[in-house]
Amino acid sequence: MRNAKPLPGSLVQRYHGWRATTFAENASWYRRLATEGQRPRTMVISCCDSRVHVTSIFGAEQGEFFIHRNIANLVPPYESDGARHGTSAAIEYAVTALRVSQIMILGHSLCGGVQGCEAMCSGHAPELESPDSFVGRWMDLLRPGWEKVRGIEDADERREALEKEAVLTSLDNLMTFPFVAAAVEAGDLALHGLWNDITQGGLEIYDASADRFVAL
Amino acid sequence: MRNAKPLPGSLVQRYHGWRATTFAENASWYRRLATEGQRPRTMVISCCDSRVHVTSIFGAEQGEFFIHRNIANLVPPYESDGARHGTSAAIEYAVTALRVSQIMILGHSLCGGVQGCEAMCSGHAPELESPDSFVGRWMDLLRPGWEKVRGIEDADERREALEKEAVLTSLDNLMTFPFVAAAVEAGDLALHGLWNDITQGGLEIYDASADRFVAL
Amino acid sequence: MRNAKPLPGSLVQRYHGWRATTFAENASWYRRLATEGQRPRTMVISCCDSRVHVTSIFGAEQGEFFIHRNIANLVPPYESDGARHGTSAAIEYAVTALRVSQIMILGHSLCGGVQGCEAMCSGHAPELESPDSFVGRWMDLLRPGWEKVRGIEDADERREALEKEAVLTSLDNLMTFPFVAAAVEAGDLALHGLWNDITQGGLEIYDASADRFVAL
Amino acid sequence: MRNAKPLPGSLVQRYHGWRATTFAENASWYRRLATEGQRPRTMVISCCDSRVHVTSIFGAEQGEFFIHRNIANLVPPYESDGARHGTSAAIEYAVTALRVSQIMILGHSLCGGVQGCEAMCSGHAPELESPDSFVGRWMDLLRPGWEKVRGIEDADERREALEKEAVLTSLDNLMTFPFVAAAVEAGDLALHGLWNDITQGGLEIYDASADRFVAL
Repeated sequence: MRNAKPLPGSLVQRYHGWRATTFAENASWYRRLATEGQRPRTMVISCCDSRVHVTSIFGAEQGEFFIHRNIANLVPPYESDGARHGTSAAIEYAVTALRVSQIMILGHSLCGGVQGCEAMCSGHAPELESPDSFVGRWMDLLRPGWEKVRGIEDADERREALEKEAVLTSLDNLMTFPFVAAAVEAGDLALHGLWNDITQGGLEIYDASADRFVAL
Repeated sequence: MRNAKPLPGSLVQRYHGWRATTFAENASWYRRLATEGQRPRTMVISCCDSRVHVTSIFGAEQGEFFIHRNIANLVPPYESDGARHGTSAAIEYAVTALRVSQIMILGHSLCGGVQGCEAMCSGHAPELESPDSFVGRWMDLLRPGWEKVRGIEDADERREALEKEAVLTSLDNLMTFPFVAAAVEAGDLALHGLWNDITQGGLEIYDASADRFVAL
Repeated sequence: MRNAKPLPGSLVQRYHGWRATTFAENASWYRRLATEGQRPRTMVISCCDSRVHVTSIFGAEQGEFFIHRNIANLVPPYESDGARHGTSAAIEYAVTALRVSQIMILGHSLCGGVQGCEAMCSGHAPELESPDSFVGRWMDLLRPGWEKVRGIEDADERREALEKEAVLTSLDNLMTFPFVAAAVEAGDLALHGLWNDITQGGLEIYDASADRFVAL
Repeated sequence: MRNAKPLPGSLVQRYHGWRATTFAENASWYRRLATEGQRPRTMVISCCDSRVHVTSIFGAEQGEFFIHRNIANLVPPYESDGARHGTSAAIEYAVTALRVSQIMILGHSLCGGVQGCEAMCSGHAPELESPDSFVGRWMDLLRPGWEKVRGIEDADERREALEKEAVLTSLDNLMTFPFVAAAVEAGDLALHGLWNDITQGGLEIYDASADRFVAL
């Protein structure tokens, strides 16, 4: 027998609450989304972190955001090797099938994945160097970012700089996807880099002309 | 210069609305989540689809759900090959670092990824068979599920059965991760399989003893 | 021999039902709450009344709400006299040890304690004036509230106004506790005043800017 | 302006969910409870701890349990001194006005109040000895219980024994209230002492004839 359990009663109750209120009030819109298909304007790539829900920050309605969430909001570079690439599949679907108009990379403060990367790269987390470590191998994507910020003396500044490097890495890697680059160059797709300060509720956006993050 | 654009004004405006209301009203809690770290009870693995936001369905607060979203809510099998595995990294972090108490796989109706899988497996989407197709290679995970449902004659029934196979595939693959299996066996982790009917706002849960999905 | 009796069979039976279902389904979470300790976001101060269970109204999970219940959801003023103060002890523990982020005062309609206060203050319940009356001495806390509403002619309106005064009295007295005032001023603690209409299932919240209760 | 904030949106949503489901399904019963008044069979005195909700353990419906919750589920002795006694007021109201048929004292494992008492009595928490400490002065009620268990060498056993002493102290103090003793002697009121093991979901009841707690 498969390993699967009933849902906690509090979640069952909450679901019924949602259905009787939010769903009921939006039923005709949901039905239209169902019959006509989704048509999101935006793809969001954000972190799994339970403290950063992009639908809350932007008051998103059903149907607006196509959302991929992974550890540290990272996009790997384009690799056409016939292997399995979950993040790349999400991007491909968003850009080529849904033809979203924008991709938002949303990083954040106090990111556990980024902290792991820093610990690994600075020699304090040998277990993350193991080939067996999924988190370690995933955070390898941010090693070049680490090289750029490792000289920053203040620990908090260095951490924040690395979190922002995760956003920039993803922006750069996005452009290695031929279909992304083509859509950006045709003016059909805009990329955005954002960083959320959990503590203060702040949001900074990467300003390409100034090459730095500025408060919204 | 990097390719990154300012955010559309409507999103900037919505962010400020969030900060002045939801963030302001929850500021002390957000600060505590920041200083003490997240302690989510639940990991959710759901689809990127813009019509299925688990935080809405369960009225989740900041800090409650650690959420990975990918195409068709799929979990690959455990592969300790030193390669990059984004979904596996998220699961490893949730189970070993955050020690969540439950993992919820949330599938849904009208899933574009599942439709692609069906088209590919039934010979109607040769482009998805290409080694270059990220979506195709990702949906290979569901090929064994297709074999189980391909005999169903009614197209809608077959589609829904395949969507549910995606949930079951993920439940089965989760148990191939040694740290997941160990936590489940120790009673520290519960797995749940769910399927959301977008049109009706329905929610079904996989009942292991009956080996079928039943309405909540 | 101490005076203690076996539990009625119906309650024993219900307990076993809970253990086989709710507890079993949440066992890993309960164990984690046990090993890591509780970390509730919210303290609730509500009435003992059997018709007002805040865990039901808000679908609260284990671990979410730290709940003090007394007659008429009253908070006494801060008194540092070395005497025993049960309500103050609960508030001190919630704010200084658990560092909750919000305190919710939940009043309600048809409150027996408030009715007793009205009867006492209007001269219709001399027995409550006796030094021996625990309920009378407790409801003395609401005498200043009575002075504010006694001029209201309509009996139902006057009763409801007095129930709401109980909530406001508690909000005001909370701020006389130095550790509460400090946490509120630091933005670490938010206070909320609520009133539940039992008959209609209504919930009103005190809006400080308008100085009145408004429906949620 | 009073210090009071709006409620977090997730709680507002959950309330509306409750109203549309649980309340709607029970509206006629709630209305009857409103028009006829509450008539609970049982008073429960339990701890504020967020992990122990008696309504969950016994699947209690609206109207069944009149619940007082304080730190460590303690009942002080009867003191007819004209001062304010919140717990005594709740007991007086339950027994003389509502005429409940039983009072359940519900203790539990891992009780923070009991841990504070132990720390204070064993000289490890001088701050709790201060006249300013509300928790300390409240936990003075359990000092006699500490004297009984202090000789137990094993720390876990000692803690559990002290948690159970809190239940027994409350049972004993209940009988110092003349109206409680009279009702018990008339056979109109039964007292029950219970202890909940949070980790295991266990429930033990005090068996007066054997003078020990036994599993239900």
